[in-house]
Amino acid sequence: MGEVEEVRNKQVVLRDYIHGFPKESDMYITESSICLKVPQGSNGVVVKNLYLSCDPYMQLLMKITQGHGAPFTPGSVITGYGVAKVVDSGHPNLKTGDFVWGTTGWEEYSLIKNPESLFKIENTDVPLSYYTGILGMPGLTAYAGFYDICAPKQGEYVFISAASGAVGQLVGQFAKLMGCYVVGSAGSKQKVDMLKNKFRFDEAFNYKEEQDLDAALKRCFPEGIDVYFDNVGGKMLDAVLLNMRNHGRIAVCGAVSQYNVEQPEGVTNLMCLFYKRIRMEGFAVFDYFPQYSKFLDTVLPHIRDGKIVYVEDVANGLESAPSALLRLFSGRNVGKQLVAIAHE
Amino acid sequence: MGEVEEVRNKQVVLRDYIHGFPKESDMYITESSICLKVPQGSNGVVVKNLYLSCDPYMQLLMKITQGHGAPFTPGSVITGYGVAKVVDSGHPNLKTGDFVWGTTGWEEYSLIKNPESLFKIENTDVPLSYYTGILGMPGLTAYAGFYDICAPKQGEYVFISAASGAVGQLVGQFAKLMGCYVVGSAGSKQKVDMLKNKFRFDEAFNYKEEQDLDAALKRCFPEGIDVYFDNVGGKMLDAVLLNMRNHGRIAVCGAVSQYNVEQPEGVTNLMCLFYKRIRMEGFAVFDYFPQYSKFLDTVLPHIRDGKIVYVEDVANGLESAPSALLRLFSGRNVGKQLVAIAHE
Repeated sequence: MGEVEEVRNKQVVLRDYIHGFPKESDMYITESSICLKVPQGSNGVVVKNLYLSCDPYMQLLMKITQGHGAPFTPGSVITGYGVAKVVDSGHPNLKTGDFVWGTTGWEEYSLIKNPESLFKIENTDVPLSYYTGILGMPGLTAYAGFYDICAPKQGEYVFISAASGAVGQLVGQFAKLMGCYVVGSAGSKQKVDMLKNKFRFDEAFNYKEEQDLDAALKRCFPEGIDVYFDNVGGKMLDAVLLNMRNHGRIAVCGAVSQYNVEQPEGVTNLMCLFYKRIRMEGFAVFDYFPQYSKFLDTVLPHIRDGKIVYVEDVANGLESAPSALLRLFSGRNVGKQLVAIAHE
Repeated sequence: MGEVEEVRNKQVVLRDYIHGFPKESDMYITESSICLKVPQGSNGVVVKNLYLSCDPYMQLLMKITQGHGAPFTPGSVITGYGVAKVVDSGHPNLKTGDFVWGTTGWEEYSLIKNPESLFKIENTDVPLSYYTGILGMPGLTAYAGFYDICAPKQGEYVFISAASGAVGQLVGQFAKLMGCYVVGSAGSKQKVDMLKNKFRFDEAFNYKEEQDLDAALKRCFPEGIDVYFDNVGGKMLDAVLLNMRNHGRIAVCGAVSQYNVEQPEGVTNLMCLFYKRIRMEGFAVFDYFPQYSKFLDTVLPHIRDGKIVYVEDVANGLESAPSALLRLFSGRNVGKQLVAIAHE
């Protein structure tokens, strides 16, 4: 153990900033080497990456676009949320063998220089991969967005777009546990079936098969919508605004329908905001990181009891990471898209 | 006094629902008669109308449009906020000679069957006309929208559109009293001068003379905007979204730029809501009517001290009411547009 151990390290690298829809060739696999010992005097950690999370926001970081923070660097390894095992640690709170989740590299091993950003995984009786999803960033997003931003009440009418995704499936189950009427939209029959049969939504529809989103919403919500958890923006948001009830709340979590358009679709029904006294609020999960343990206390028992279920779409091997990410962007994934790159 | 007194009663009537921009010919003056005694057994009141308020929302009630509640009835007298004197009362809380403000008719005398909707005017040391504006519905709108919806903090950067209007001028002065940096937009040089010199805004600009609203906002707010009090919607809102700071708040009070367009302008920058965790919230003044006396306690001392000033644009005579309303819709008014139809 005294000698410096250097190993080959496969990596996924962004070729260049993209324009329009991402392609597999925008990323490539390369191999470098990494020392599995933390540099002397550093308080960083070296981790072996186990599961990589594919998240919609990553698409934005592949472009130079205003507003969303620092994009990826062309020629450098892609970064994202993941689950990893500590191989060597210079940090007092982490030791070799610990499991962590947080921001890591799309590579076999990573040297993480700011391990304060990592969450130590204490509960390993649930699948470790869950910490890329229901027990990780998307889970906390669903929790913060639903309970804090949507301020839901029992019996309210709740609509969720991209409802079968990592965040949506959890929001819907939170809403059902609260005694709400829950409807979700998704982009395939398989996903719609999953919403109704697996996650027990009251109703669901395939937005791609609806000629008229306003009519679809009126069919599912004859009384209107109290709470909208918005993952997509654009036309769906515009139709939802027409169907909101007085004092409704819209949590703006994402706008995935707008990430790849040359010119964003204009939302034309914002006058509904004052007609119906609607609150529409954007939020970011990192503002809620300090509430992570409270979130775990809420969600873990429900997972253990089987009251909340979770569907993952797992790609295997680091080489499959670029295509897995594209599956997410084109909506081919069913449930939380992730990549399993090693099993401990 | 025992006999029934019947008098001639001039009225302003809506001819028919309008399409597009309202014209003077969409209204006409007629004369009917009214009994100045409350019908026996009624708890209504008969009032002599003194001041009529011209408000942007009235434009919406001249059309059949979804969403904003019951429109005016063609062939019937136009209704709106006004200040009136009680001529006869069947209601225990009001007596002959009392001054009131609330919803009344655009006519010389009105029989008001639900006097519970009226606010009794207790403070008459300030101009009675103020109860159509700074001390009436627009004043309470400014108070609720600014203090409750915008949740402002000392030193924050505040932007107000339609800033010289009935609501905007008060919001700006509230913000200055709180120690905010305040910028307003308006549609003429005269209004811009008024914002800077009369209401002591830190900066103001004429939106009609700006080629690029985004650039105008960046010039006035190099650090960005914390609070936007939105009276106009449309392109200005879109430009503001680009300039909001993290955790900014937008009070959506109206969208006067959109009331007369065939197709509403699409707002394309809503992704800023989650990039910057912005809250955007519509509100309606009638939700705040129970707070009216608290509002008066806040504002009246400032008016008496001269710390808050108010500019009115007064048209004289009921016959001038249709043209006064059109002045408002075309932005020709400078300050709160109202019509004086009688002096007690």
